[in-house]
Amino acid sequence: MSDPKDALRVTYYLTCAPGEDGAAKARDIALEQTAEMPLSAVPPEVHVVGEVEAAERLRDGRWRAVIAYRPDIVGEDFAQLLNILFGNVSLKAGILVTDVDLPAVLLALWPGPALGIEGLRALTGTHRRPITCTSIKPMGLSAARLADLVYRFARGGIDILKDDHGLTNQATAPFAERVAQCQDAVARANAETGGRALYFPNITAGPRALAERAELARRAGCRGVLLLPMLTGLDTVRELATGSDLAIVTHPALAGALFRDDHGIRPEVLLGRLTRLAGSDAVIYPNTGGRFPWSEETCRAINERLRAPWDGVRRAFPVLGGGVDAARVPEWTERYGTDTVFLVGSSLYAQGDVERAAARLAEAVRRYGP
Amino acid sequence: MSDPKDALRVTYYLTCAPGEDGAAKARDIALEQTAEMPLSAVPPEVHVVGEVEAAERLRDGRWRAVIAYRPDIVGEDFAQLLNILFGNVSLKAGILVTDVDLPAVLLALWPGPALGIEGLRALTGTHRRPITCTSIKPMGLSAARLADLVYRFARGGIDILKDDHGLTNQATAPFAERVAQCQDAVARANAETGGRALYFPNITAGPRALAERAELARRAGCRGVLLLPMLTGLDTVRELATGSDLAIVTHPALAGALFRDDHGIRPEVLLGRLTRLAGSDAVIYPNTGGRFPWSEETCRAINERLRAPWDGVRRAFPVLGGGVDAARVPEWTERYGTDTVFLVGSSLYAQGDVERAAARLAEAVRRYGP
Repeated sequence: MSDPKDALRVTYYLTCAPGEDGAAKARDIALEQTAEMPLSAVPPEVHVVGEVEAAERLRDGRWRAVIAYRPDIVGEDFAQLLNILFGNVSLKAGILVTDVDLPAVLLALWPGPALGIEGLRALTGTHRRPITCTSIKPMGLSAARLADLVYRFARGGIDILKDDHGLTNQATAPFAERVAQCQDAVARANAETGGRALYFPNITAGPRALAERAELARRAGCRGVLLLPMLTGLDTVRELATGSDLAIVTHPALAGALFRDDHGIRPEVLLGRLTRLAGSDAVIYPNTGGRFPWSEETCRAINERLRAPWDGVRRAFPVLGGGVDAARVPEWTERYGTDTVFLVGSSLYAQGDVERAAARLAEAVRRYGP
Repeated sequence: MSDPKDALRVTYYLTCAPGEDGAAKARDIALEQTAEMPLSAVPPEVHVVGEVEAAERLRDGRWRAVIAYRPDIVGEDFAQLLNILFGNVSLKAGILVTDVDLPAVLLALWPGPALGIEGLRALTGTHRRPITCTSIKPMGLSAARLADLVYRFARGGIDILKDDHGLTNQATAPFAERVAQCQDAVARANAETGGRALYFPNITAGPRALAERAELARRAGCRGVLLLPMLTGLDTVRELATGSDLAIVTHPALAGALFRDDHGIRPEVLLGRLTRLAGSDAVIYPNTGGRFPWSEETCRAINERLRAPWDGVRRAFPVLGGGVDAARVPEWTERYGTDTVFLVGSSLYAQGDVERAAARLAEAVRRYGP
């Protein structure tokens, strides 16, 4: 390492098979993720092999290893950053990325969220209280029906009306038609209520269509979009964050494959650190106690990573979803704090009159201030 | 389902927690992946919820469920196809996609490989024998040094010289400079030997840079590229396959996160079916007996899916890598057949004189014909 403070430092928790040595496993990772050839065949003038700075056996039998990688092997893309952290070793076993320490030289490449918590507060006209969000769904409804839902949720006072993450460009509600009608609906509701609700369409698609849809959304007057970065690559978030003025909300579809206890990338690293750095202003993940088996500890760890000061990278909102009960939003606010977005879907739809259900939720969060 | 023959049929193997019922779990998946709201709240005129066609307990205690999804919820993107197969449920547990049956209406959207086995044989001038491939590495070498490796491997008779999957646009060998020099090196070697070796650069990057690099490679005279689709989205493969004449070799970095025994997508489905359909002409995966813990059964299943006739979708090459010993290539050829690409890296580098090592491997495969 030219300068140790410039290292990309990755902490791995290693689960060893019988007869496997943790320190040897760490050295194998350092080689596999870099030179990817026998150490003896690496030309002596090449210094790309990761350096195992620590490898210690933990009391639970696992190993904790810290590997320092040279930042100049990363280049400029999140694709390559993820590739170094877990690309090839994803095909092995018992390797869990538990922490990533990015040096200033890499942080400088990736400015993070363009808006962040402060920017999204300005956009929604909120100050202290939690922000409310819902999903416009289900797939299969016409653009007009979806727009009617946008209208009613906006009338009720929900701050962000985002497309369901499965809405793309299906024939039942083609993207261009849906965006035009939904954006019109939210503008109409805002004109009537004096509110500042926002409609965020899902622009997840292949690279060409994604760029076209972002532009179409912007031209329609949308101030933000939804993206599923594990399906499009984290670099789509980065490009959008640096090349447009759209707020970016990210959804964790497919990310769960990485969230195993013994192999993958810890949620607080992938969602709390990398997704924030890529430029997500608001990171959706499933709250504990909903439809997904997540612990409160994981939720708190993600929140902490999204909101903590970090060398000039703007703070991002955690967006708690995955089956949040509208009635429990005050309780979750007490636990997680007010710099939180609550994505409440099913629990509002189940009440039948969604405008009234939305109004109740909006009232519940307004008690925390403007 | 309007017409059952048009269904997107997905087979899941379910591992149930104590007290969890397999049939209920299947119904939950069918709802979670589509309407994503309580069944009672789904408008009656909307028919998007997946239909559980079968749910049976297997002798090993797992459940096998078949869910039929309407093809019109897929739209046109692989992002949404993957989202339906495993997007939200990736965040749950014990759900393994073991088979996907794509109806003609979806196959028609995605033509698959532009070249396939026949096209890549024409490009390499091979007929019956296995194709040889190596990786140009390690990162950290200058463009000139990498080009020298290309030259020597090409002189030795290796068919495809691909960038190591970690080579992107690092300062040590910037993409444009590397591609110019490596393409020049392979052309020079071919002129000397009368051979038809090909250099394939790695264009994995964010969407804008990826498109630029594909174009730069094409203009430099490259006939193919390397892509890491789990880091850029499978739609990048699709767009490249339909929008350019470049051969596409795909690498499985990060895909291992999905290859768990009880939760994820079976390798033969993701690599053998979806990656082929997206348009990969040659799909890299780790051979059994190398550095990665893969079974021969999995390798055979992937090969079968890549090569089997499939409603007009071109056949794709399996590319066996991950520590293939050059000396064992004849043995693997006997086992897997000659429509195979062998990606031999470390085992050639370890021999020191890579041109001579390459020549030995080239000779070994030539005994299977031209």
